[in-house]
Amino acid sequence: MSTKSKSHSGMSDLPTHQSVVEASARLEGHIRKTPILRHKELDRIAGASLFIKAETLQETGSFKLRGATNHLLQLRPDQYSAGVVAYSSGNHAQGVARAARKLGLPAMIVMPSDAPEIKLAGVRADGAELVLYARDTQNREAIAADLSRQSGAVIVPSYDDPKIIAGQGSCGFEFGQQLNEMGQRIDHLICCTGGGGLISGIALGFEALNIPAALWSAEPEGHDDWARSLKSGSVQVNLPGTRSVCDAILTPQPGDLTWQIAGPRLSGGCVVSDEQIFEAMRLAFRHLKLVVEPGGAAALAAALFALPEAARGQRVGLVLTGANIDPALYAEIITSA
Amino acid sequence: MSTKSKSHSGMSDLPTHQSVVEASARLEGHIRKTPILRHKELDRIAGASLFIKAETLQETGSFKLRGATNHLLQLRPDQYSAGVVAYSSGNHAQGVARAARKLGLPAMIVMPSDAPEIKLAGVRADGAELVLYARDTQNREAIAADLSRQSGAVIVPSYDDPKIIAGQGSCGFEFGQQLNEMGQRIDHLICCTGGGGLISGIALGFEALNIPAALWSAEPEGHDDWARSLKSGSVQVNLPGTRSVCDAILTPQPGDLTWQIAGPRLSGGCVVSDEQIFEAMRLAFRHLKLVVEPGGAAALAAALFALPEAARGQRVGLVLTGANIDPALYAEIITSA
Repeated sequence: MSTKSKSHSGMSDLPTHQSVVEASARLEGHIRKTPILRHKELDRIAGASLFIKAETLQETGSFKLRGATNHLLQLRPDQYSAGVVAYSSGNHAQGVARAARKLGLPAMIVMPSDAPEIKLAGVRADGAELVLYARDTQNREAIAADLSRQSGAVIVPSYDDPKIIAGQGSCGFEFGQQLNEMGQRIDHLICCTGGGGLISGIALGFEALNIPAALWSAEPEGHDDWARSLKSGSVQVNLPGTRSVCDAILTPQPGDLTWQIAGPRLSGGCVVSDEQIFEAMRLAFRHLKLVVEPGGAAALAAALFALPEAARGQRVGLVLTGANIDPALYAEIITSA
Repeated sequence: MSTKSKSHSGMSDLPTHQSVVEASARLEGHIRKTPILRHKELDRIAGASLFIKAETLQETGSFKLRGATNHLLQLRPDQYSAGVVAYSSGNHAQGVARAARKLGLPAMIVMPSDAPEIKLAGVRADGAELVLYARDTQNREAIAADLSRQSGAVIVPSYDDPKIIAGQGSCGFEFGQQLNEMGQRIDHLICCTGGGGLISGIALGFEALNIPAALWSAEPEGHDDWARSLKSGSVQVNLPGTRSVCDAILTPQPGDLTWQIAGPRLSGGCVVSDEQIFEAMRLAFRHLKLVVEPGGAAALAAALFALPEAARGQRVGLVLTGANIDPALYAEIITSA
C-alpha cells in the first residue's frame, strides 16, 4: 500500500500530526480563522450539543483554500513560472485558483462542464485558465496529466496528497484550539467525506492537540463508500454513474493516503438522504443565517438526522465545508419543505 | 429637549461612552462576538476597503439582542415577576423574547400582523406572549402602554432608551477592539438607521476607544429621515404610509435621545434604492455566504453603491445588522437580477 501511495503522491511518507502543526503555522495570515457557532434549536433537533465550524466563511467559500495554499507555498522557485494544474468539481478548483493568484502563479483548472456556475465563475474571476470536460465520458486525471506534461505545471491533487491533507488538517487544529480557548471539549466530530482529505487532516490535527473525539464520516446515499469501507475494513467503491446533488463530495472511493490515515482512526460513517441534506440547508438558513451548499451540509444533516447512537446527548463538533451553490438551486431548496 | 427625553426614557441623562464600556462588560458571556469579514471583490465594487461586521451571526439573527439583554440585566428584582413588554417589527421583538427567556422572565411582544413569519415564529419559539396589531390602524405604543399598566410589565423600548443605546453600542466597542487586535483602523463607518439606536451606540463605543472614524447613516429611499435631518440640522420626519421592503428599519423619525447623541456626531446620510439593497443581498449571498435581510443590507448597499465621496479609496467599516427574512422573499431576491 505504501508503494501505491508513493506513486500517487510522489512522497514516501504519510503526513503526521506534526505535518498539520507545520501547515497551520505556514498558513498563518494566508487563510481566515472561521467561527464556531452554536444554536439551541439545532441542539434540540439533534439531541446533542453541537459545535458548528463555519468553514463556509473561509475565503472562496470552502475549506479547500487551506490545502491548496499549503501545497503551493511549498513549490520550489524553479516551479513558479510553469505554475500549477488541478482538477476538481469546483471547491478545490477555486482554492487552487485563489492560492495561485495570491502567490502570483499561473493556474490551469480542469472542471466538469456541469459544475455549478458560481464555481466556474469563481475560478474565472481569479484569472485561472479553465479547461472543461464531460463528467461522464472524459477522464479528468488524464487531461490534467497531459496539461502538466505539455507545460511543466505541477499537479495539485484534490485530496490524496500529504501537503493537501496537512493543509486541510489546519481546520481541525484551529477547531481544537478554539474549543480549548472556549474552555470546551467535544466527544465526537462529524465531517463530510469525498476523497477524505479533510477528515484525515482533522484526525491528525486533533491528534496533535490530544483531543480524543470519536470521528465519523458523513456522506449522501449512493456515495457511502467511506461508511461501507469503514464497516467492512477495506476500501469499497461507489457504483459508477450514481448521481447526487452533493457535487462537492462525489468521489469513487476513499483515497489511498486518506484511507491509510482515516481508516484506522474513524469510528464509522453516517449516511444521509438528499432530503435530509436539504432540510439541514433550510435549518442553516433559518437559524444560522448561513448559506451552505448540499455537500457542505452533509455533516450537519448527519448530526441532525443520522446521529450515531454513541453521540446522543454528547458534545458533537461538525464542519460546514462549502457554500458555493447557484442561486436558483438554493432558492428551490429553501422554499420547498 | 432634555425634558422630552426624560418623559420618553424615564432617565435624566444621555448615555455616554462610559455607559457603552459598562454595557460591554455586562454583556460578556450573554452575547456572541461576531466576526469581521473582508472580500476583495466587494472592495473592488465599492472602490474602498471594507470591514464588514457580520452581526447577522448574533444570536436571534440581529444586533438587537445586545440592547435588550443590557436592559433586562438591569431590572430590579421586584420587577422580575411581571416581566417585560416590547413592541417591534421583529428583530427587537426577538431580542427581548430571547433575553427574557434566558433570564427566566415573562415577556409580551406587540408585533404588526404583517411582520415576516420567521420573526413571528422566533418570538413564539422563545415562549413570549405575542400580541398582534394592524400596522396601519393601531398604535403599538398605546397597546404596549396598556399591557404595561394592566400587568406591571416593564416596557423595553426599541431604541430611544439609554440602556438600549448603550447595549447596541457594545457592537461598536467590540468592532473597534477587533480592529485594534487585527492591527487595522477604519476611516469611515456606515450603519443603517431606523430609530438610530445602533449608530448612536456605535458612536459612543468608538469614542470610548478614540476611533476617529467619520460616521454615516444608511437608509432606503422614502425613509431617509436621518439623511434629511443631518442635512438640515433638525429632525425631519418621513411621509406617513410610505412602504419599503426594509421592515426592520422603518421608523417615522430619528429618536429624541438618538438624535441628541448621533446628530452632532454623524457626517451625513447615505440613501439607497430597494434595487441596490437587493443587489447587496445577492452579493452577500455570492461572496460572503451570508443571509442578510433587506434592512440588514442597507449599509452594505450604501458602501457598494452610494459611498460618500469622502470615503472613496478609504477604509470603511459597516455592519450587517439582521438576517431574519422569509425563505420565499429571499429566494425571489437572490434569483432576480
